[in-house]
Parts: sequence; structure tokens; C-alpha cells
Amino acid sequence: MIAINTLQTLFIETRARTETLCKPLEIEDYVVQPCLDVSPPKWHLGHTTWFYEEFILKHHKPNYTLFHEDFAFVFNSYYETIGKRVVRNDRGNLSRPSVAKVYDYIHYVTNELKELLENEVSKEIEHLLLMGIHHEKQHQELLMTDIKYILGNNPLLPKYNDSFVEYPIQKEKQDWITIEEGIYEIGHTNQGFCYDNELGRHKVFLNKFSISNSLVTNGEYINFIEAGGYKDFNFWHADGWEWVKQEKMTQPMYWHKIENDWYYYTLQGLKKVDASAPLCHISYFEAFAYAQWKGHRLPTEFEWEVAQEKFNWGTRWEWTESSYLPYPNYKKAPGAIGEYNGKFMVNQKVLRGGSVVTAEKHTRPTYRNFFQTNLRWQYTGVRLAK
Amino acid sequence: MIAINTLQTLFIETRARTETLCKPLEIEDYVVQPCLDVSPPKWHLGHTTWFYEEFILKHHKPNYTLFHEDFAFVFNSYYETIGKRVVRNDRGNLSRPSVAKVYDYIHYVTNELKELLENEVSKEIEHLLLMGIHHEKQHQELLMTDIKYILGNNPLLPKYNDSFVEYPIQKEKQDWITIEEGIYEIGHTNQGFCYDNELGRHKVFLNKFSISNSLVTNGEYINFIEAGGYKDFNFWHADGWEWVKQEKMTQPMYWHKIENDWYYYTLQGLKKVDASAPLCHISYFEAFAYAQWKGHRLPTEFEWEVAQEKFNWGTRWEWTESSYLPYPNYKKAPGAIGEYNGKFMVNQKVLRGGSVVTAEKHTRPTYRNFFQTNLRWQYTGVRLAK
Amino acid sequence: MIAINTLQTLFIETRARTETLCKPLEIEDYVVQPCLDVSPPKWHLGHTTWFYEEFILKHHKPNYTLFHEDFAFVFNSYYETIGKRVVRNDRGNLSRPSVAKVYDYIHYVTNELKELLENEVSKEIEHLLLMGIHHEKQHQELLMTDIKYILGNNPLLPKYNDSFVEYPIQKEKQDWITIEEGIYEIGHTNQGFCYDNELGRHKVFLNKFSISNSLVTNGEYINFIEAGGYKDFNFWHADGWEWVKQEKMTQPMYWHKIENDWYYYTLQGLKKVDASAPLCHISYFEAFAYAQWKGHRLPTEFEWEVAQEKFNWGTRWEWTESSYLPYPNYKKAPGAIGEYNGKFMVNQKVLRGGSVVTAEKHTRPTYRNFFQTNLRWQYTGVRLAK
Amino acid sequence: MIAINTLQTLFIETRARTETLCKPLEIEDYVVQPCLDVSPPKWHLGHTTWFYEEFILKHHKPNYTLFHEDFAFVFNSYYETIGKRVVRNDRGNLSRPSVAKVYDYIHYVTNELKELLENEVSKEIEHLLLMGIHHEKQHQELLMTDIKYILGNNPLLPKYNDSFVEYPIQKEKQDWITIEEGIYEIGHTNQGFCYDNELGRHKVFLNKFSISNSLVTNGEYINFIEAGGYKDFNFWHADGWEWVKQEKMTQPMYWHKIENDWYYYTLQGLKKVDASAPLCHISYFEAFAYAQWKGHRLPTEFEWEVAQEKFNWGTRWEWTESSYLPYPNYKKAPGAIGEYNGKFMVNQKVLRGGSVVTAEKHTRPTYRNFFQTNLRWQYTGVRLAK
Repeated sequence: MIAINTLQTLFIETRARTETLCKPLEIEDYVVQPCLDVSPPKWHLGHTTWFYEEFILKHHKPNYTLFHEDFAFVFNSYYETIGKRVVRNDRGNLSRPSVAKVYDYIHYVTNELKELLENEVSKEIEHLLLMGIHHEKQHQELLMTDIKYILGNNPLLPKYNDSFVEYPIQKEKQDWITIEEGIYEIGHTNQGFCYDNELGRHKVFLNKFSISNSLVTNGEYINFIEAGGYKDFNFWHADGWEWVKQEKMTQPMYWHKIENDWYYYTLQGLKKVDASAPLCHISYFEAFAYAQWKGHRLPTEFEWEVAQEKFNWGTRWEWTESSYLPYPNYKKAPGAIGEYNGKFMVNQKVLRGGSVVTAEKHTRPTYRNFFQTNLRWQYTGVRLAK
Repeated sequence: MIAINTLQTLFIETRARTETLCKPLEIEDYVVQPCLDVSPPKWHLGHTTWFYEEFILKHHKPNYTLFHEDFAFVFNSYYETIGKRVVRNDRGNLSRPSVAKVYDYIHYVTNELKELLENEVSKEIEHLLLMGIHHEKQHQELLMTDIKYILGNNPLLPKYNDSFVEYPIQKEKQDWITIEEGIYEIGHTNQGFCYDNELGRHKVFLNKFSISNSLVTNGEYINFIEAGGYKDFNFWHADGWEWVKQEKMTQPMYWHKIENDWYYYTLQGLKKVDASAPLCHISYFEAFAYAQWKGHRLPTEFEWEVAQEKFNWGTRWEWTESSYLPYPNYKKAPGAIGEYNGKFMVNQKVLRGGSVVTAEKHTRPTYRNFFQTNLRWQYTGVRLAK
Repeated sequence: MIAINTLQTLFIETRARTETLCKPLEIEDYVVQPCLDVSPPKWHLGHTTWFYEEFILKHHKPNYTLFHEDFAFVFNSYYETIGKRVVRNDRGNLSRPSVAKVYDYIHYVTNELKELLENEVSKEIEHLLLMGIHHEKQHQELLMTDIKYILGNNPLLPKYNDSFVEYPIQKEKQDWITIEEGIYEIGHTNQGFCYDNELGRHKVFLNKFSISNSLVTNGEYINFIEAGGYKDFNFWHADGWEWVKQEKMTQPMYWHKIENDWYYYTLQGLKKVDASAPLCHISYFEAFAYAQWKGHRLPTEFEWEVAQEKFNWGTRWEWTESSYLPYPNYKKAPGAIGEYNGKFMVNQKVLRGGSVVTAEKHTRPTYRNFFQTNLRWQYTGVRLAK
Repeated sequence: MIAINTLQTLFIETRARTETLCKPLEIEDYVVQPCLDVSPPKWHLGHTTWFYEEFILKHHKPNYTLFHEDFAFVFNSYYETIGKRVVRNDRGNLSRPSVAKVYDYIHYVTNELKELLENEVSKEIEHLLLMGIHHEKQHQELLMTDIKYILGNNPLLPKYNDSFVEYPIQKEKQDWITIEEGIYEIGHTNQGFCYDNELGRHKVFLNKFSISNSLVTNGEYINFIEAGGYKDFNFWHADGWEWVKQEKMTQPMYWHKIENDWYYYTLQGLKKVDASAPLCHISYFEAFAYAQWKGHRLPTEFEWEVAQEKFNWGTRWEWTESSYLPYPNYKKAPGAIGEYNGKFMVNQKVLRGGSVVTAEKHTRPTYRNFFQTNLRWQYTGVRLAK
């Protein structure tokens, strides 16, 4: 375990960063929920705060007084163990508690926790706090993707700020890295923090394979579009093709064709698409279809984990061909904490890597992110294998 | 026509009242749209302002500069004639323009109009301005019903203020007023302001009928509930019964049964239901079912108009049995103004009267309000006939 | 009341006609339900038979044995009073009872009723039998419209037979009939059979109006289409315009544009549209839009009833501007029979007249048919007024 | 390849068996489609016939005349390559072609193929024919599950026949079979017929595991129900729990609780549930929840394939924990044949084994069946692992 003063520092820094990320927002931006997958920023603030209150303060701080007895109801997410769940759809209808009140809640809980940490605490509290911090870091990423969705779907296309770079230059010339057939070990060694879904380090047998040293670029994807990629069912799964037709998909999320040029909404506002930057905001269905068109495939999560030390990664969450399943001997933790990962292990795909909005030190080579196959508001990208 | 200085006063008073109504709101309350029929307060402010800009300033003030070129898109409602319509569902996703910006818009347009009115203006402008003022008064009513919906559906049940009386005492002892058979004249005489749907004053033949001098009370409606009114299809239209079953209806909107007592959310917060106050927030389906159960019926809009001078009215919009149809020789006005009323003349019921949130001098004996048969977030009530 | 031997004859003829109408069908045609509004022919046969069994034999024939105890469940329609309703949507999933079994049911019930009628029967039975016969005549009409829908939506477009004429020649040269202002009497005099919704003969005041001596033709409607009638919201109700956009409406039901010519599916198979024949299979929304475009309007049901003796009618059910509402002093009959009409008196429009598939002697000048505003699989047409 | 006379015999036997399976049906049973996943028996007959016509006769028999030019449209399934697809939902609305006509089609195509096989044919034709035969065998299984659904959802609960045994006795006493850690080979060796999704025989590394020698029984599953298994979210995936709540799931498909006893609909009619027979008609969600409740898990498809020679199987398709994904080096075949398997490799689970309605010699240890996680009209069961 890490030293308690380091943990306290990490806690304070994490809380501070959440506030920093919200600095460019108007009060109104905290409230809306333009689609079901997006949560209002206010909710992220309340929810990460509630997590500390519910799992640490309420049970481990003597004489702790709840900030507000209804907030557990308002800011719980999917924890069935703890009372009645808020219907997700309703998050965007909550004008109250006000943003000011939520910040009061944040500061109250932060102070109570700082107070608790002034004295030595049990290993259990340390573990729960570390869990809470990583939970908050995870929500920082969602906060940024949700802010982008809220601003990027507003008819006025307001910018977030002038400095956030979402499309960093990718220096590598595309090349293939080859990995030999063999038995490899997969999963976390349990030294330092990780989630339960990374544990159960185990052997897998891999055939020889090659993986690209670089991500698919916007320019390469434009070739796919212009070759009629969205119009030919041959490249798509049956479900993917239904999705293309029903949603009338023709391009990545946030892209706009204005006259004959491609533009995209970025946190810096509307910009011309940079052909050499790595592709972003595509669904698994699109990632798969692109790979089919190119005559290649997506890597499995095991291939990615084995090969990852040989290439740069971290600007895009990378879709893999692997379904999100438990590792051998996976056991979900008892109680509410156990609901964190295990119950989502069906009908989702694993993503590996990290992104330009991932909190510092939040990802690692064994980290397993996961989303449904049609979602694309995260900073998702594609690395090919063959 | 009314004198221009009176008109200017009316304009300024109306604009001021809209701001007064919003005083108790937090910024967050302006933004949300908890259901499709409700519009965010911010939208009402922007829309009523846009109406003056679009129909008066833009065409009748020389060298007028639009406040913002995208606002027409954002704040238009159902006017197909004017550009692309905003999908109604999206109103609650608009965090921008901010509330502060919308108030800037209000003040800009108000000042521009005041400037225009400093000199003599044409009859056409006078007419359009009067139209805009009445349009705003109409939206003041919707603003209040929507604010109630937003606060009354928030899990914290915040109050609007402490003084707003929604359930005034009804002094009349219930009695029947009888009107003799005969030919009566219906509709507006076109002296003073009215909407186009009231014009075409015409004769109707009425049979002898009786109408109640008072509104159905909460207490009477509780009798209906307790007699199993929501469980017996015999009292309902087929469509009404479907609605009861699908929506699992058991009581008026805003009512809560807590232990064994009935409470309702009011603008003053949660209160015990007052049995002697007039019933509110029921749909046409419920009004009809109640009348069936009671062995009576709802009046037609013609019966109501003929009898109305013999009873007190104005706290509830009263459901009638009449479908919303054009009067003989009704002609809709050309262009966008013509979209105001005519295109809704199908599958809606006429309501007569006015309510505790109706703007002063906004209703009159010939006023025809109308809603779909399942809606109940307005201040709707019941007066029986036989 | 009519003499019992006449009644018996009428009963036998009606039953026989139902079988005759089904002659051209394959067994498979009896079973399917291609849309919610259409019932499988087998269901019409079972339902009309069940009506006699339920309301007459079961209660009025001593020692009557039900043909099959589950048939009441299978063949009931919307009678809430009598047991659990079959969800309408399920009618097309019932492969059993087989068609042969349903014909056994028909013959069993017919014979039992004939037996009952061999002796003198009470006035109540006479009334119920007359009700049952008219109920069956009504279903004969629906049977034909549903058969047309089943065949006309089959990709092989099979014909019903070679002789059924749906588009009879209309001899009248279009002209206007004028009716003077005055008080008129409306409704049935209660001499001979009628439905409860026609009773309550009462006075109405009508303004002077004109009504066309002839129906709108296919050719006239083609002019509306070609003038862009389906593309201009100005002619439509707001609900109608939503319907046009959502359902992508561009022409009457059963019409197909093949190369540059208009064709329609008829019971005789696919044919070229006859420009001089009366328009058919349009919704109220379309009827209204056409009238708007033409600068005229639809008649009210009262205007139609007053004027009808001055023109020919009976090939199309004619949409009126009147909503389907109770006449003054309308009382619905107690029990299941009372569900026949009253509970549909909301959000529907009245149609007057009759059609090429209406059973002989089934309609009359006071008959009030009614449908929702978006339906068009009936033989609906348009007569203009001004 | 198998000898041509054997192939011809196999073809004739397979065609004959399809007809035999349909013997107990009424004509009406061939037509209906009570839910989207079920196809009308008539469609299965037409579709398997069309497969031979489209892929063999049309391209490989000189001067072949299509039986009917519209049948390709009517009886195609999901083959995007070949013309416009029939919307699946519509299959149950097709009263025409009649059943008699479909049998004419069957006999015409069978005879044409027999004629073709009288002379020596190319390897390609042999391959396509074998494909067509296995395609038909697969549809024989679906035909039986769809017939069960049609009869088992009819309110009269008609039996299929008296002799079909769906719940055979399972002789084994439950015990665990243990397999050691190691590298194993998975997939088909390409000797004899198999589908493309079984090819690409490859190595996998397996940890030591145990698998049950017997299937979960009805009695064991009743324990799960009575322990509140359907009421405790802890046993379910998040998606599974949503499914339970939305669909109000409380028991396997076809089960009915009558008074205090469990019954199920079988092809022999309604019977009391036999506690010792293997559980059937449960979804993956239920299989997973049962395993969670029991403290065990489902095997992976690799574990199943490695262990299968040590236990009896073949009465139930057995849910595995494996997602349906391509084997390494999987390539889908070009053209329409390539649509058979590859495009479904997302969001489905693998089932291994076979069932009481699987055609003889149609399954094998490497056979990979697959369905969505909520489906249960197939003969699905559960074998536990740990």
C-alpha cells in the first residue's frame, strides 16, 4: 500500500482536478443530458462525492452527519445494493440540487475526509479511498466526454477552451510489429492498484501475429468513406449494418461535411479534419468494418497486452476483437463494490490503452475498458492487426 | 384600437411580469425539460422575445440588427413557415445560450421595441404588437405550469414561493342553473382583442340544459377514487381506459398518498389536499369518467358560453365536451400568423374559462383554449352539466 | 318490429352472404393479420357467430351447450364486460381453431338459432337478433376491407375475383347544391332499426351552405398530388403533417406509380387508375388537405344529413368535419351492448354515406360511421362543401 | 467427399424428413408468425427449397426455368448479396403463395435436382449440395422449435403428436469430470462436412477445470426459483436484470404454475414438470444466474470441446460462457455463402452440443451454435463447470 500522506495528496489533487476540469463551464452546462449515455456534469460531481460519503464516511467516520439525506437517492448510479436506483433517464431533469449546492456538498465531504485522514486509518479505509480516487479519475474521463457531447451537440457549437489538444501528432511511420507464437501471461500482478477484472493473472496461447505500430488516421478513414464503406454491407456485421441503416450513419461522430471539406467539432471548436491525426469517435462496428475493408482485423486484448510495450499508446482507447469476459477464477467482490465490473461482462467489447482525456496514472497495460458495440462518444480509435 | 401609449404601457408591464414570474428560479431551473410537453423556462423567455423580433423588428424597424442570427433557429416553436423547426424534444438539451445571454436578448429586443414605439406606428404594427403581448401572456401561463412541473417532479420537491395560492376557496353551495331552449349567438364580436378562432360570430340552437354553478371539488373527486372510479372501464372512453391502464393512473397529477392521507404538490410545496377546494390537474378522460360516474355530463363549449355570465369562473380551465373545430366561415390568416390556431383543429378538446395562473385580462367569455385529451399539467378542472 | 319469419329470412340470408364473400379465399387467407387494424377473416367469422351465441343462445335458449368453452375468449372483441379481452395484436397468431372448425362453429350456432326461431320468441330476443344481424352486416364490410388489405399487401398481388367493381362510373357533372339557413332536425326517428348513436333526434341551426353533388375524382386528386400537395404543410393539420412526414405519405393507399403511370390494386387485381372514378382510400388528414388546397372545406355531418336527399351517395364513406360526439340526451345502453358505440366517442371523425362493400340495406341517411383521422383502409372518399 | 449416390440418398432422405416433420400440422399452422424470432413453417419449406434453386439449379443446371420469379424475394432470408431482403417481420403476413403451391415448389426443385444428379457433377456442385442439405437440417431444427412456439402459444394448447419425447431420462448421477491444465487443439480437422466457423484448428491454453457429467435438472432449477432467484439482482448481469424486470420473467419458457404445481407445454401437450428431466428453454441470462446462485460457472466452449468425450450430450444445446468470435485465421467465404456465419460474430453466445430436435448426424463435437443472450425458444440447457 502507498503511504497515507501520499494517499492524502493524491486524494486532494484528484478532487482539485475535477474542479479544474469544470472551470470553463457555464452553470447551465452542468445540468443537461442530451442523450441517455451522457450524464450531466453536476451528476458526475455529486456521484463521485457520494461514493466517498457512502463507502467511507458513513461507515467509518464516527458521528458522521450526512450532508443531505436525499442525495444518496439522487447521486447513486447503478448500485442495486444501495436503495432504490435513480432511473438513468431522469438525470437530466434535475434542476435541483443547484450547482452551488453540489459544490457545498463536494467541499463538505472533502473536508470530512481530510479530517478522517489526519489520524492513522485502517487498511480497509486506505483501500476504499484508493478505490474512490480511481473511481473519480474514471469519472473525470467521462466528465470530459460528456462535456464534449453537450457542447458539440449544441447548435451554437461553443468551444470548451482554446488549449485542449485532442488530435496530437502521431510521429510513427506505419509499420508492423510481429510477435511469435507461444504461451504468454495476461493480467495484473496485483502490485499497486488495479480493478478486480484485471486480476487472475493467467496463461494464454497466442499464434504468431502482427500488430501495427500506429493508429489508423483520419485520412485513412476518409479513404474508407469515399470508397463507399458505409454503403456496402459486406464489411459489416449484421447488427452493425442494421445500426448503419437505422441511424443513417455516414461518418464518425462530431464530423460535418461543409461544402466539400470535412470538419469536426473539437474542444477548441469547429476545425478542419487533420488527415494525419489519429481517427477518433468511432464505434466497434465501424472499427471492425474498416478493418474488413482494409483486409486486416482488430487485435484481441491478449495480443494487445503482449505487444503493447513495443508501441506508443495512450491517445485513444483502442477497440479490440475481444468480448468483455471474466478472466479464469474471476470472483466478484461481495456487496456494492462487487457491482463495479462483473455485472457488465456480457455483450460489450474490450478497449485497451487510454486517451487524451484519461487522468494521469489512471491507465496501465492491463487496464480493461469496455463499451457496447454501437457507442462512440468516448475517445475511441483503431489499431490494426493481421 | 387602443391608444399607443396604453399599448406601450401594456407591453412594458407584460415584459416586466415575465421577469417577475421567474424571480424565484435558480439558473438551473431555466434549463431542464422533464417531459415533452413542458418547455424549459429559458425557452419561453427566448421564444416570446423572438416573436417580437421576428414579426415586428425584423420587418418593420429600419436598419434593425438581429441580436444573434442563430436564435431564430433556437427559439422558433412550431412555425413551419419560418425556416427549419427545432425538434421539440431537444429544447431541454440546450445549455447555451446561457440564461444571462437570454436576458440580454430580452432587454435588447425590449429596448429596440420601445424605441420603435416612440414614434407613431402603423395599424399593422399595432396589431402585431398586441398579438405579441397576448402571445407572451399565453406563454406566462405555460411558464407557470412548466415551472410547477419542473419543481413538482424534482425528488427534493422544492417550493416556488410561500405566497402563491392555487386552491382558492369556492364560496358557492352547489346548485344548478337552467338555460332555456333557443337560438343563441356564439363567438367574439370583434370589439377589442381576440384570436381568430373566436371570430365568425354565429347562431347555434341549444336544447334546454342545466349547468352547475360551481366546480367539482377535491373531496367529490376523492369519492370517485374511493368508489373505484379508476378501476371500472364502464366510466371511461375506450381510449381513456387504455390510457389509465398503460400509464397506471390512479389519481390526479401531483397527488401523493402518504400513509392514509392525500397530499399534493403546490407552488407552496407539499400540502394536505383541501377537500373543499376545486379539483385541478385532471385530463379530459378523467373529467369525462367523473361525469359518467356521477350520472351527469360535461357542458358543450356553446352551453358554457351562453351560461357563463350566471356563474363565477376563472380559477380552472374547464374541460368541455366540444371538440376543437373551426367556427363557420373560419379562415386562417395567411403566413406564419395563420399557424397560430387553425392547424391544431383536430383531436383536441375545447376548454373554457381561465385559471389562477392566467395573466390578467388575458381571458374572456369567448376565449377557446384547447388541449389533447390525456394532458393534465395545466390548471384544468370540471364543471358538470345535465 | 318486423315479422318473425322475415327476421328469420334476414338472418339466414345474412349468414349465407358472409360465406359467399369468403368463397374466393384460400384457407391461408383466413389466418393472417398484416396490420393491427385488420382482423383475419377467420376472426370475423368466429366473432359474428360468437355474438349470437353470447347474447342470445347462452341466455335465452334452454339447455344450450356452448360449442367450445374457450371460443368466447378467442372471438370476443372489445367487450370489456365479458371476461378477459384478447389483445388485438394477437389475432393474427392463431392458427387454431382451424378454418374448418370455425365453419363447424358457424353451422352449429346457425342451426341452434334457427331451432330457437321455430317457436315464437320475445321482443328482447327479436331485438338482440336484429342487433346481431346488423352487427354481422357491419363485419361483412370490414371483412371485405380486410381481405383487400391482405391481398393488396401480398407481394404477389393476387386478385379476389374478376367481377367486383370498386370504381363505379359517376355520372354527375360536378355542381353545387345550396341549402338555406335554418333550423333542421337531425337523427333517427326510431322507426325501424338504427344504432343508439343515431337516436335523440334534435334540432340544429345551420347557416346557408353549398355542398357538391358529386365525389372528388381520382383525376382531381392527381392534380393535388402533382401540385405538391403532400409537400406543403400549409394544407395540413399539424398532426396530419406529422403523419405525412413520419409515414412518408405521397399518395392514396393501394396506389403505385409504375414508370410514369398511376396504378392501383383493386379486388380485380392491379389496374390503371381511372381518372373519372371517385377517389378512395384516403385518410381524414388527406381529405382535409385536399379541401384546403381546393379552397373549400368538408361538410359537417349535419349539413350532409340535411342535404343528402338531393344527391346520390353510397359508393364511398364520406369524411365529414364533425367529430364523433354524442347527440343531446344520448344514453348508452346498460351492459355489453352499451359498449357498441358510446365508448368510441373521442378523437374520431364521423363518416356519412356507405360504400361499394356495404351490405345491402345496412346504411341509411342517419347512419354515423366513425374512424380515426389517419386510417384509410376503408372505402373512404371526399365530398366538398363551401 | 462422399460418393454421389450416398449424397443423392442423403438429399432425398433430408427432403423427405422435412415433409414428415410437417405431417401433424393443419394448413393454418404453416402460416402464422407469433413473434419475430419465429418463422412460419411455410417459410422454412420455401426457404430451404429456394437455397437449392438459387445456389445450384439457377447457376449449374443448363436451361433451368425458375419455378416462380417472385419466390426469391419471398423466401430469401438474410442474404444481402441476393436482391432485396424481405423484412423479417412480414413473414407472418404472407397468405400467398398457398401451402399447396409451396409443396409444388418443393417437388419441382427436388425433381430438378434429382435429374441433375443423374449424371456426374462437379466438386463445386457436390459441395453446394452438401451445404444445402446441412442448411435444410439446420432449418429442420428451427422448424420444430417454431412449431412448438406456434402451438405452445395458442390459447387452445394443441398437441403436436403423442409420441415426441422432449424430456428424456438422464441416467447419470451428478459428478465432476476434471481436466488438467495444458495446451489443447480446438476446431475441425476438415475431414467430412463442417461449417467455416469451425475451421482454423488451433491451440489454446486451458487451466485445470472441472465440468459436470450431467445437465441441470428441472428440479434443481425449481430450487433456484423458490430460493428467489428471479428476485435477486446479485445473480444477474446488469442486462440480464433489465430483461427480467422488463419482461417480468419468473420461470422458463412454456412453464405454467397451475394452483401449486408446475406444468409445461410439450409437443405432447400440457404435462406436469418432471423434476428429474434436464431443464430446457432458458436464456443465457438465466443459465448464468443459475450458475452464480449455485456458486459455479458455465464452461467455455473450449473447455466443453476438450471435455465432451467424457460425458453424454445431445439432448440440449448447452450455453457456454464464450462469446461467438472468429477462430484465428478465420476467413469468410466470398459471396452469399460467406454470409452464413461470419456476420453474426458479435453480441451472441456459443452453444455446444445438440438437442432432441437436431437432425440425425447434424451435430458434432466441434459444432458451434449461437444465439442472443435473451432467447429461449430453442432447446437450450445448462451444464455447470468450476
